[in-house]
Amino acid sequence: MEIKEKVKIPGLDTSVKTLVILDRKDANALGVNPLDRVVLSKGRKKITCVVDVDDGTLVDSGEIVISNEVVKVLNVKEGDAVDVSRRGELISKKYIRKKIDGGVLNYKEYYEIVKDIVQRNLNDLELTSFIISMYIRGMAIQESANLSMAMVNVGDKLSFGKRVVDKHSIGGIPGDKTTILVVPIMTSLGYTMPKTSSRAITDPAGTADREEVMFNVDLKLNKIKKIVKKTGGCMTWGGSLTLSPADDLIINIERPLRIDSVLLPSILSKKKAVGSKYVVIDIPTGPEAKVKSIREAAELYSKFKRIGWKMGMDIVGASTFAYQPLGHAIGPALEAREALENLMNPSTPDLVAKATGLSAMLISHIEHIPFKKARERAMDALISGRAYKKFVEIARAQGAKVLDPKKIAVGAHKKDIAVRASGYVNYISNRTIVTVAKIAGAPFDKGAGVYIHKKLGDRVSRGDTLMTVYSNSASRLDEAVSSSSGAFKIGRKPKLPKDVLLKRFAR
Amino acid sequence: MEIKEKVKIPGLDTSVKTLVILDRKDANALGVNPLDRVVLSKGRKKITCVVDVDDGTLVDSGEIVISNEVVKVLNVKEGDAVDVSRRGELISKKYIRKKIDGGVLNYKEYYEIVKDIVQRNLNDLELTSFIISMYIRGMAIQESANLSMAMVNVGDKLSFGKRVVDKHSIGGIPGDKTTILVVPIMTSLGYTMPKTSSRAITDPAGTADREEVMFNVDLKLNKIKKIVKKTGGCMTWGGSLTLSPADDLIINIERPLRIDSVLLPSILSKKKAVGSKYVVIDIPTGPEAKVKSIREAAELYSKFKRIGWKMGMDIVGASTFAYQPLGHAIGPALEAREALENLMNPSTPDLVAKATGLSAMLISHIEHIPFKKARERAMDALISGRAYKKFVEIARAQGAKVLDPKKIAVGAHKKDIAVRASGYVNYISNRTIVTVAKIAGAPFDKGAGVYIHKKLGDRVSRGDTLMTVYSNSASRLDEAVSSSSGAFKIGRKPKLPKDVLLKRFAR
Repeated sequence: MEIKEKVKIPGLDTSVKTLVILDRKDANALGVNPLDRVVLSKGRKKITCVVDVDDGTLVDSGEIVISNEVVKVLNVKEGDAVDVSRRGELISKKYIRKKIDGGVLNYKEYYEIVKDIVQRNLNDLELTSFIISMYIRGMAIQESANLSMAMVNVGDKLSFGKRVVDKHSIGGIPGDKTTILVVPIMTSLGYTMPKTSSRAITDPAGTADREEVMFNVDLKLNKIKKIVKKTGGCMTWGGSLTLSPADDLIINIERPLRIDSVLLPSILSKKKAVGSKYVVIDIPTGPEAKVKSIREAAELYSKFKRIGWKMGMDIVGASTFAYQPLGHAIGPALEAREALENLMNPSTPDLVAKATGLSAMLISHIEHIPFKKARERAMDALISGRAYKKFVEIARAQGAKVLDPKKIAVGAHKKDIAVRASGYVNYISNRTIVTVAKIAGAPFDKGAGVYIHKKLGDRVSRGDTLMTVYSNSASRLDEAVSSSSGAFKIGRKPKLPKDVLLKRFAR
Repeated sequence: MEIKEKVKIPGLDTSVKTLVILDRKDANALGVNPLDRVVLSKGRKKITCVVDVDDGTLVDSGEIVISNEVVKVLNVKEGDAVDVSRRGELISKKYIRKKIDGGVLNYKEYYEIVKDIVQRNLNDLELTSFIISMYIRGMAIQESANLSMAMVNVGDKLSFGKRVVDKHSIGGIPGDKTTILVVPIMTSLGYTMPKTSSRAITDPAGTADREEVMFNVDLKLNKIKKIVKKTGGCMTWGGSLTLSPADDLIINIERPLRIDSVLLPSILSKKKAVGSKYVVIDIPTGPEAKVKSIREAAELYSKFKRIGWKMGMDIVGASTFAYQPLGHAIGPALEAREALENLMNPSTPDLVAKATGLSAMLISHIEHIPFKKARERAMDALISGRAYKKFVEIARAQGAKVLDPKKIAVGAHKKDIAVRASGYVNYISNRTIVTVAKIAGAPFDKGAGVYIHKKLGDRVSRGDTLMTVYSNSASRLDEAVSSSSGAFKIGRKPKLPKDVLLKRFAR
């Protein structure tokens, strides 16, 4: 059953992006009810749309109102004729229901769901139910691998040979700009590192948010291929790519809900899709990080290792110290500046130690050499300036915007926060600092954020500046500053946590 | 922080009903990001809206685009000034997260969530996560009572004294038009029965869908009060009422997802809100019903009983025979016709037995008389015509449309389905019949549905009509008919299920 309708275009920008409104008579003729789906076609172009039904106020029989998204996809204008037919039930909805009800899904079932996510056949309610059920029900190793491979196979795939390396931090430490150092270190040493990153979900800045301050991160797949072939690496945003395209659609729902339900498949599918063979997983560990203990980190690492293995990837990993922000800067522009400064002149101890340490884990594993020796190679790449040179080469290939740290624009408004009593910095609340940076406007306001002047163990005197808050909104700045109490704990005597900076896990 | 903006009204009918679009500069000044909420106010009118941010293509600084819903609530016109301020975080989002994470919520926490559902502060993603987490995590008795009372107290409440009775079927049997007989039976016997019903969720017809064929069911609260005071009862749709108003908002999300997560609170809050004291719960039981065994029905009844008790209601209940549709008719108009015919002349055995049986359970419990005697009273009310007289009185008070069964319009197209081999009807698939009726267009197409000519145990000869399918859409009719195989199983020898028509549970 198919009917012809004349399109009407009132300029609808709806949240259900692909909405059509049918006259009730036509809806009955097609046999569709509100919330059913119809397929509109014009020549070879097709799109699935959500139906709303009207009783003669908006459309007459023979007419169909279409939203702007539909106009764009079908490339039609007012009065054009389109074919409209009813779409059958999606099999993927059954599989989502199976997951909700506690079932275990196989590869084919995940493939159907992921395909329908990417083709926008599933609406936000269906996608949300899937995400929440994944979050609550969880997934075993094989199931995670099934979902991960489904996410990979629904999208495009890249391939750059055997020595393709990658890195991922599971997050939870503010100010982690390590990737911006690791990519040039590894590529300057001859490895291939096609690094795609995401934007912030629950943090004040994701790696793509930081990088975007300095160069373009929103690149097409062909451009990425060219850049990686030429320079050996790239630093791009994974979201607009057709590599594991379901990932960002899922994140779009997860972000406002503050849910992180497909953590491992989301990460590993992106790595697999760019053709990575060796991946280092960074698991920040601390009282306010996502992962609280080295034991918990080891368990998580083991899952990465096992799922990755089923996907044909070789994974190493470490628990890293997350009792305080990494370096001093939190927020896209502030962090970009700090990363750049350290590429030019490695000077922030924890940042340099972490970047060279993670790089060395990959090198040591691939080359079968001791970690210590591998670390020397990474450090040498950084100190010699070869990594910086490589960074500039990649950044230029990606259309560099600002590569002078002094010219990176930070928030127009700023306020210093001073310490009230003298003593030692014994605790820094990552969570409070994240809240302050987010209230200040990060990551959407790129100049917003926090600069930490004192770190764990530092001696402070009454009146010293502990941190400076930046924002481009005066009102947000005020609110952020007033939310900053509890960010630092000052004690009379120094008291440092015993955890190590980098705890490598045995393979 | 509050800024003044001039409204622009392009005629946006968005799915996120209360959407505003701000210029990026203004958004930064307010300190809001996309998906944040702002409060718009004009005089004493206020509304919470979802923010989208634009870079100068749709709005300039000082302007705000508002969707039609916002226009309506604030009663503004193009160019009017409104005050815009940022809204703080909702505490209810924390409680939803607590439920997702497996926590148990108290009354206050549910109250916050329900209040924010009703005030439209929670968006569809948040509401979906709440519903799915309730479905997966479940609720203990006290928690269900907490949610139920929160649902009651967020809305309006009615009160009609002590002898207020109610009835609810948990559904799962097609063609259940019992309520249309029970209300007039009970009210003709002097009880008060302010019955509100819902529209179909997963069935071809809900009681409100059936009733709407004969009289108006969409009444205002004041009108209901008047009608109940005058006639002793009513038969209305609960959805547009402000009685437990969260219920239908939740159902709007549940329906497309085919999830039924707040079954008991949804039912009991509606009963409590109309002031019901005695409630009979009908639990249809059969191989294709929601409830498969009498044991399972007894467990469900026990939950109703205990939650109801905590809410100050006295509940009786029964498992009822659901191995085949009730009566012959499935679909709003067909069912209305059958109910009406039985009020005028009680002739459909299972329908009459069920309606008088459920009525008798209430009577026996309230009056402390034996069930058998109570049933005689109910039967007498029906056979004497007093119940029919009462029905007409209530229907007229509700603006009767059609009260002559012959004048009830059923689907314009129909098709008979004949039996291929002679024998006995040994099985009827409720699920297949529901599917056929829904494909035919029920409940949206009121005339669509199925009429069953043969029931369990009937002897059939090759060529006899088993059922007739009705629809107002020729294409839907064809599709429905082609989905009807497997609706009946015919055997050489008769084979009847042993379950009883009405299994009353001990109090």
